[in-house]
Amino acid sequence: MAKRASHDKAECPVARTVDIIGDEWSLLILRDAFDGLRRFGEFQKNLGLAKNILATRLRHLVAHGILEHAPASDGSAFHEYVLTDKGRDLFHVLVGLRQWGEHHCFQPGEPHSVLVDAQKGQPVRPLEVHAHDGRRLDATDAVVKKVSEQKPRAKR
Amino acid sequence: MAKRASHDKAECPVARTVDIIGDEWSLLILRDAFDGLRRFGEFQKNLGLAKNILATRLRHLVAHGILEHAPASDGSAFHEYVLTDKGRDLFHVLVGLRQWGEHHCFQPGEPHSVLVDAQKGQPVRPLEVHAHDGRRLDATDAVVKKVSEQKPRAKR
Repeated sequence: MAKRASHDKAECPVARTVDIIGDEWSLLILRDAFDGLRRFGEFQKNLGLAKNILATRLRHLVAHGILEHAPASDGSAFHEYVLTDKGRDLFHVLVGLRQWGEHHCFQPGEPHSVLVDAQKGQPVRPLEVHAHDGRRLDATDAVVKKVSEQKPRAKR
Repeated sequence: MAKRASHDKAECPVARTVDIIGDEWSLLILRDAFDGLRRFGEFQKNLGLAKNILATRLRHLVAHGILEHAPASDGSAFHEYVLTDKGRDLFHVLVGLRQWGEHHCFQPGEPHSVLVDAQKGQPVRPLEVHAHDGRRLDATDAVVKKVSEQKPRAKR
């Protein structure tokens, strides 16, 4: 799929991430990978998207080192797609998307899937952003320092 | 923009969130809104995207109650776009995208913008997922319980 613009040289880490996974299908493939789906056919069935689009997205996620090929877990000829360490590091992003959806996209009492601690079965805590010294921060307590604001520019 | 599929009835909160903000431009508009941009022209200049695409995305975010119109802060005739409380709740998603990018999308030593605590100027802590009882969880310690797994289905 042609991107309308590339942010892969941006100084903003959000832009570089969005450049790689900032589309509906990549995010849902990742969700499914975190849920343990591994095979092309499993993703295709769960997502209901066209095979060519799925193939393109999987190739893209493999090219960026987020998924990798693995031999079929049952010894068959299928190959499978599994999260790399880099892919698993997107856990926080997926949890953030989930928790916002839980809070803002369901009516009170409307059932939804829940992310639970595998050991005790209790829902995970809401994500919090903390300062270096542990204070809890909300959006108005944090600012982005551009590269140009981090150190004086070289004189010439 | 026509969506290829709608997940707005999904039982998965990730899917419902992605249905609303799971595209490159919406995520970058939100980033800019968190950075304090408010005017159409500011977003357009910073993102460098076509006016019609920006207008569509802004309208979409307003329709979903993530941004709202506000009178111009300088009393001029322009109107501005500001995050609602619902929009500000996406802070954790943006921080997650940022931290993944910081870690995985830059070479060692390559400069990037940094999210800092406004009060002390120190970078914020990496996000962590915690269990109900405070244990730190990674992706393999958590599982999604579907609605059908949460309670027995009614017999008939």
